[in-house]
Amino acid sequence: MNLEKAKMDFSNHVKSLQNEICDTLRTFDPLLTMTEDKWDRFDFNDAPGGGGITRYFQGDIIESAGVNTSEIFGAINPEFSKHLSGTGTELWASGISLIIHPRNPRVPTVHANFRMIQHGSKHWFGGGADLTPFYPHLDDFAHFHGVWKKACAPYGCYEEMKKTCDNYFVNKHRDNEMRGVGGIFFDHVSSDIKSDFDQVIDLSKNFIESYFPIVKKRVNEKYDKADEDFMLYRRGRYVEFNLIHDRGTLFGLKTKGRTQSIFVSLPPRCTFHYDFLCEKNSAQEKMNKLYSPHNW
Amino acid sequence: MNLEKAKMDFSNHVKSLQNEICDTLRTFDPLLTMTEDKWDRFDFNDAPGGGGITRYFQGDIIESAGVNTSEIFGAINPEFSKHLSGTGTELWASGISLIIHPRNPRVPTVHANFRMIQHGSKHWFGGGADLTPFYPHLDDFAHFHGVWKKACAPYGCYEEMKKTCDNYFVNKHRDNEMRGVGGIFFDHVSSDIKSDFDQVIDLSKNFIESYFPIVKKRVNEKYDKADEDFMLYRRGRYVEFNLIHDRGTLFGLKTKGRTQSIFVSLPPRCTFHYDFLCEKNSAQEKMNKLYSPHNW
Repeated sequence: MNLEKAKMDFSNHVKSLQNEICDTLRTFDPLLTMTEDKWDRFDFNDAPGGGGITRYFQGDIIESAGVNTSEIFGAINPEFSKHLSGTGTELWASGISLIIHPRNPRVPTVHANFRMIQHGSKHWFGGGADLTPFYPHLDDFAHFHGVWKKACAPYGCYEEMKKTCDNYFVNKHRDNEMRGVGGIFFDHVSSDIKSDFDQVIDLSKNFIESYFPIVKKRVNEKYDKADEDFMLYRRGRYVEFNLIHDRGTLFGLKTKGRTQSIFVSLPPRCTFHYDFLCEKNSAQEKMNKLYSPHNW
Repeated sequence: MNLEKAKMDFSNHVKSLQNEICDTLRTFDPLLTMTEDKWDRFDFNDAPGGGGITRYFQGDIIESAGVNTSEIFGAINPEFSKHLSGTGTELWASGISLIIHPRNPRVPTVHANFRMIQHGSKHWFGGGADLTPFYPHLDDFAHFHGVWKKACAPYGCYEEMKKTCDNYFVNKHRDNEMRGVGGIFFDHVSSDIKSDFDQVIDLSKNFIESYFPIVKKRVNEKYDKADEDFMLYRRGRYVEFNLIHDRGTLFGLKTKGRTQSIFVSLPPRCTFHYDFLCEKNSAQEKMNKLYSPHNW
């Protein structure tokens, strides 16, 4: 498998995965509306530099979701290129990035992305999937991690990718509190092009099974104001992570990505508190203590 | 005036200004509750490094406000000290920082801060005040800017400080849209200690007159859902600026400031939209076009 064929196949794969995830999303919410924007990007020299397909959803069950793909290429800021592995001032990147913010706080938020990057002499893959729950349904966390553990088994990569995820989605400025309960995360996977490609494609196919059974199980669960207040507070922490720490967000803004598309990750509503207090012995107090590494 | 006396006097001044602003705030909202936290800070070597007084308010008229002072000193991260003017790896800083988020969208949000910093051989002052309205009450913007223009007149500094403000509170990633309608902003004011000190103290005394007459004028104005939706959307942009671009936020986090105190700047509630649309010919549509430099 040569690099050019891998690039083309990867771009086709993420687009078909985008369709499949969007179709699954629709089955859960009859009132879901979709805004689709196909956008063109211009590179650092204002030459055509690829683009993407942004799909933004709003609904009753799914409060908001973004399921985006993009394929970009061309010149990048020479200063920025120094911070990347690889050579030269041209970059090619293709990937899918998605986030789902359900309205019911008993249904967790999820984020995933799978990407391939080429910078001159070097190519690498990155990605992962992570869960951000607002209610201590421990069996949901076990399901999510269980699917990824099984998916990773042929490659022996679960332990490392789980640990990388636990270390990545962290608000360092909040005493190292995690954004959610993790999942898997990997970056700079770069050895043999064929085996890298096969592994990442294979992993990406597990997203639907890792998340949607949880939605199905929890979507009709009753919730109250304490659930909702806690979700809105934790969504605030989600915003803090994405805007202060997330390399994906930074990468997008630095490579002249489309701000509007990058920011579909932000929750539709959230709150910020000086000092959020959970009721003693409540489910929220229990959940609030679980944003740290665990073996689910 | 020697440097040590200036430092002591500056710290005393910001604390008395803090009291005065808090007292004024209370006159507007009988239901306002205050949480006061006096906190200690530890420096880069975990030695005592000063601290601060955080006052967080929540109420009916004032949805949230933070009026904070701090005086910090001691060792800083040597890496970080390279990015500062001055010498050595010790830093002293004192200042007041405040933000007021009224509940009524017809009353603008305001932010101000005044600070003095010493890094080895160098001292400098910084600060400013800026207004973030959600309704096109142009006469309010003229009042705010008018007060600062008059305050700056003895120093001939309004034009420059207004321009610096217009250039600073900008979401570069949103086509250079301003956070609000500006005000004044200055940094690295560093010449003669006595004249610097007198100028900054003098400017800081104008905050109350620049803002509270607007609150008084607008606080009973009726508003509707379109007003509130627009405010929540613009508060989202406020969050984007503070977490992605604001040097003050970054400075606080890098110098081991107290996260909880730094983040009182974040609005209590906000929303994020893929594509916020204002109604044609509405006040919101008019306001939305005003987040760019103007001569008010």
